[in-house]
Amino acid sequence: MTTRSEKNRRLREILNSDGLGTVMAAHNPLSALLAEEAGFDAIWGSGFELSTSYAVPDANILAWNTHLDLMRAIADRTGIPLVADIDTGFGNAVNVSYLIPMYEAAGVSAVVIEDKNFPKDTSLRVGGRPKLISPAEFSGKIEAAVAARQSPDFTIIARTEALNAGLGREEAIRRGLAYVEAGADALLIHSKQPTSEEIISFVEAWPSSVPLVIVPTAFPELTEEAARDLGKIKLVIYGNHAVRAAIGGMRDVFARIRRDGGIHTVTPDLPATQDVIELAGDARMRAVEEHFLR
Amino acid sequence: MTTRSEKNRRLREILNSDGLGTVMAAHNPLSALLAEEAGFDAIWGSGFELSTSYAVPDANILAWNTHLDLMRAIADRTGIPLVADIDTGFGNAVNVSYLIPMYEAAGVSAVVIEDKNFPKDTSLRVGGRPKLISPAEFSGKIEAAVAARQSPDFTIIARTEALNAGLGREEAIRRGLAYVEAGADALLIHSKQPTSEEIISFVEAWPSSVPLVIVPTAFPELTEEAARDLGKIKLVIYGNHAVRAAIGGMRDVFARIRRDGGIHTVTPDLPATQDVIELAGDARMRAVEEHFLR
Amino acid sequence: MTTRSEKNRRLREILNSDGLGTVMAAHNPLSALLAEEAGFDAIWGSGFELSTSYAVPDANILAWNTHLDLMRAIADRTGIPLVADIDTGFGNAVNVSYLIPMYEAAGVSAVVIEDKNFPKDTSLRVGGRPKLISPAEFSGKIEAAVAARQSPDFTIIARTEALNAGLGREEAIRRGLAYVEAGADALLIHSKQPTSEEIISFVEAWPSSVPLVIVPTAFPELTEEAARDLGKIKLVIYGNHAVRAAIGGMRDVFARIRRDGGIHTVTPDLPATQDVIELAGDARMRAVEEHFLR
Amino acid sequence: MTTRSEKNRRLREILNSDGLGTVMAAHNPLSALLAEEAGFDAIWGSGFELSTSYAVPDANILAWNTHLDLMRAIADRTGIPLVADIDTGFGNAVNVSYLIPMYEAAGVSAVVIEDKNFPKDTSLRVGGRPKLISPAEFSGKIEAAVAARQSPDFTIIARTEALNAGLGREEAIRRGLAYVEAGADALLIHSKQPTSEEIISFVEAWPSSVPLVIVPTAFPELTEEAARDLGKIKLVIYGNHAVRAAIGGMRDVFARIRRDGGIHTVTPDLPATQDVIELAGDARMRAVEEHFLR
Repeated sequence: MTTRSEKNRRLREILNSDGLGTVMAAHNPLSALLAEEAGFDAIWGSGFELSTSYAVPDANILAWNTHLDLMRAIADRTGIPLVADIDTGFGNAVNVSYLIPMYEAAGVSAVVIEDKNFPKDTSLRVGGRPKLISPAEFSGKIEAAVAARQSPDFTIIARTEALNAGLGREEAIRRGLAYVEAGADALLIHSKQPTSEEIISFVEAWPSSVPLVIVPTAFPELTEEAARDLGKIKLVIYGNHAVRAAIGGMRDVFARIRRDGGIHTVTPDLPATQDVIELAGDARMRAVEEHFLR
Repeated sequence: MTTRSEKNRRLREILNSDGLGTVMAAHNPLSALLAEEAGFDAIWGSGFELSTSYAVPDANILAWNTHLDLMRAIADRTGIPLVADIDTGFGNAVNVSYLIPMYEAAGVSAVVIEDKNFPKDTSLRVGGRPKLISPAEFSGKIEAAVAARQSPDFTIIARTEALNAGLGREEAIRRGLAYVEAGADALLIHSKQPTSEEIISFVEAWPSSVPLVIVPTAFPELTEEAARDLGKIKLVIYGNHAVRAAIGGMRDVFARIRRDGGIHTVTPDLPATQDVIELAGDARMRAVEEHFLR
Repeated sequence: MTTRSEKNRRLREILNSDGLGTVMAAHNPLSALLAEEAGFDAIWGSGFELSTSYAVPDANILAWNTHLDLMRAIADRTGIPLVADIDTGFGNAVNVSYLIPMYEAAGVSAVVIEDKNFPKDTSLRVGGRPKLISPAEFSGKIEAAVAARQSPDFTIIARTEALNAGLGREEAIRRGLAYVEAGADALLIHSKQPTSEEIISFVEAWPSSVPLVIVPTAFPELTEEAARDLGKIKLVIYGNHAVRAAIGGMRDVFARIRRDGGIHTVTPDLPATQDVIELAGDARMRAVEEHFLR
Repeated sequence: MTTRSEKNRRLREILNSDGLGTVMAAHNPLSALLAEEAGFDAIWGSGFELSTSYAVPDANILAWNTHLDLMRAIADRTGIPLVADIDTGFGNAVNVSYLIPMYEAAGVSAVVIEDKNFPKDTSLRVGGRPKLISPAEFSGKIEAAVAARQSPDFTIIARTEALNAGLGREEAIRRGLAYVEAGADALLIHSKQPTSEEIISFVEAWPSSVPLVIVPTAFPELTEEAARDLGKIKLVIYGNHAVRAAIGGMRDVFARIRRDGGIHTVTPDLPATQDVIELAGDARMRAVEEHFLR
């Protein structure tokens, strides 16, 4: 089993390397395990995925401890670093200060905090309500997070929504630098423009050596190779592709079952039951049974 | 919104009808919503799916209130009846007595209780440890469930694992009749034989007018039409096809992203972000925003 | 067992009566049960008590579903109405809209929502940070709550902190009337002045027939008789006396055990173990055992 | 803040010392904090107290993760070791194997596992249903616990109910030695005899150097001095005195409020509101506000 410290250090190595870490979103331990199996470097403990799995909007409808419980369950079942999406910190700097040690104890290696107002609205929604708090207020949150962490290798990532709020590249850089000044270990720069021009322009202008993190949902043409070539970007987060893949898979199978009046046609195309049982850790349980069950 | 009583009555109608209700498993409100969207008649609140989504064996590794919380969340977001898989009742008749009102209050329309020992092992596992409790002890659990329900239209389904435990058809029928005598509203007869012969033989020999429920995972060739033609069967439960479909979908997409080094090739094949946002109830939130957010 | 509707109607009767209902705070089902046993008319599902029982400040440090889970557990074990303290609604009008049906389903008969900013600070704290939202924004929350309730006999109580925020009696009345206009069934007027003058002045000036609710923590000399004589006040909430009594009791017993080096001196003064077992519902369990455990 | 390892080592020191550690039960972080404040050496994360605080029998009516969540919350707020009462391990050796790392991660320094059957009945109940599992089966659970712990300084305490089940001193010793052989770090020997003769006789006959733990609820005349003089006993657990003290305190205050028609007479006898606010960690929050809230 990979220990917490090993995971924390692994994430730091990625951020300090010349390469690019790839991070897949998860909405339950199963999707996290599949991401690890597929070879991603880390897990994104996504608020959007979790909300979607509960069939509610990604707008702080769920309580934060539903998210924290998910993080604990994922960290427990996977051996790669987990990056927790804690939205705005679910309140003010006081909330952040109380939350950080709990997320750290849950086995998370990093948190991402964004400079939106609480309750947040999801960034990708058409006609949403993006509202940012002041850089000073948000810097206070970052400082509170830094002061509250227990291990120095726990990573604090600041996320700015300045581009999405229409404040422009210069303000986004000003905010980014302020958050770095406040102690952020990396900056997630978010853009929902349908092409990568906005993000590339930001990356090229970013004047700091602190690493950048991107979420290319809206501009899929920015491949990992392209991101690596830009330098500066150390993590690429695929923020909602697990839940979208799951929806796609279920919709297809459900429709075929209804159309064909049974499971006879879909069964050969599905993972076998015994495979699923093994995926859920049958070997571990079998070992315990053999040694200790009398 | 469909009320609880309407859902309870809808399930009773199916059990009393000449037709066959189709029930799809779910492991979160999202999969339940997709099952409703696809046209299934009810949701199966599956312990196997839930355990798998947590990447742990279906052997009472999770606490029962993780399951109860899931039931509440599913019932909240869907308009069709929810049938809760409560394994063995998570203990003895005392536990059953305390659990039933909680499941009922969670918005579930039925529970299925099985005659295995606690902690259970999943029925479909190769080399598992099936152990049944005595018919007398299990009948006590059914009686406790019947006595504890608050509304008479809440459905109690007994499930026997006699066939899977190798006790034979006659013992399975004896047990089934005892559970009906104890007050069960329906009998789930489970078989893991790779063909439907065992189950068909049971159905044909079942001497009671109390309806039967089947889970054809192991014998997919038993289509809905075939089940309907047998008479007696009123519900067919697809016990793990949502999570298997989700696994299939995620594995495929994850592998393609890793192979292609980005999301550029998978994006056109995935449900669009805005569709996902709408699936999560954006219209409801938008209405609240328009009317009440100032 | 008292049903949900009976509890809802009972609370409405109190609000519409000539008398005064007495409401005791609780921080767990045990304290609620003791309050019912003592003869209080209703339970106050207090955020202050819950936070204190977790040894954290009453400042939205706990997640709201910790509170919701407590409400469900209390409603399950008691036969008198439960009035839930939902602070500011834990966010904006959208959050309120999603929360109300969940609180209603949890068995609560009323919610109290206050016009402070999220995250709140406790009203009674010396040197706290009271910040109110605008009357228009708060009225939107009340309207959202009214629109979201499922039964018309579910009670929505607006709470204004205008007096504590130093805005004066006239602004408190203006706000109170706006909230009534928005659909509030009652108004909780809060004061932390160390005498009852401020509250009495408000009550006398209150120009509406909508009933008032008070929390006399800071001015204990305002007895139930005095409150009744003022008319208009229909509920008096003792907002933190269960947890304070528990603290007093534990501190005393703990100190004596440490001083005397054992439990020999305190045992005769404590409730007997068997009494505690009975309080926890032994008779119910015993009946289940006798009828259903084989 | 005391770290986990420091707490674990502190407990080990007590078990290896010549002295006697005193352990007070808790049912929430508040009672745990008061126990620490009073000078107890450790906290007992009591299933009996937790069940009682939920007003349900101590018979596995609550799910185990309600207990685990409580442990996490207590460990988070206190600086002394926490000994978790995990009943029978909530299932078989497989359950124990999965639970131990979760309890360890929750910040607990020790678990106590008992040799009763699941679901358990509380030991102190008159006319209860004590049923033990075989020594071989229980030894398997202890071995599973030992194998599952992550740090060697995490303590596993076996508890035998052999005396309460009427099996006699010799069988109790046989079982105790078998559990020690299986890897238990200490033995909790439980007796519900109304005098200490039975327990003293056991202690005197205990032939091992592995330390003993007692719970003198039923024989309060066995003071700490007397226990220390017996040697061999290293921990004395006061298993239910926090919740009993809380009940006593609340009953008294509630009755006086009802009798006097207000809080005017009880207020001077209760801990002041501001004291309660400080107890809940106001200083910590104030520091965060001053440094980080803008």
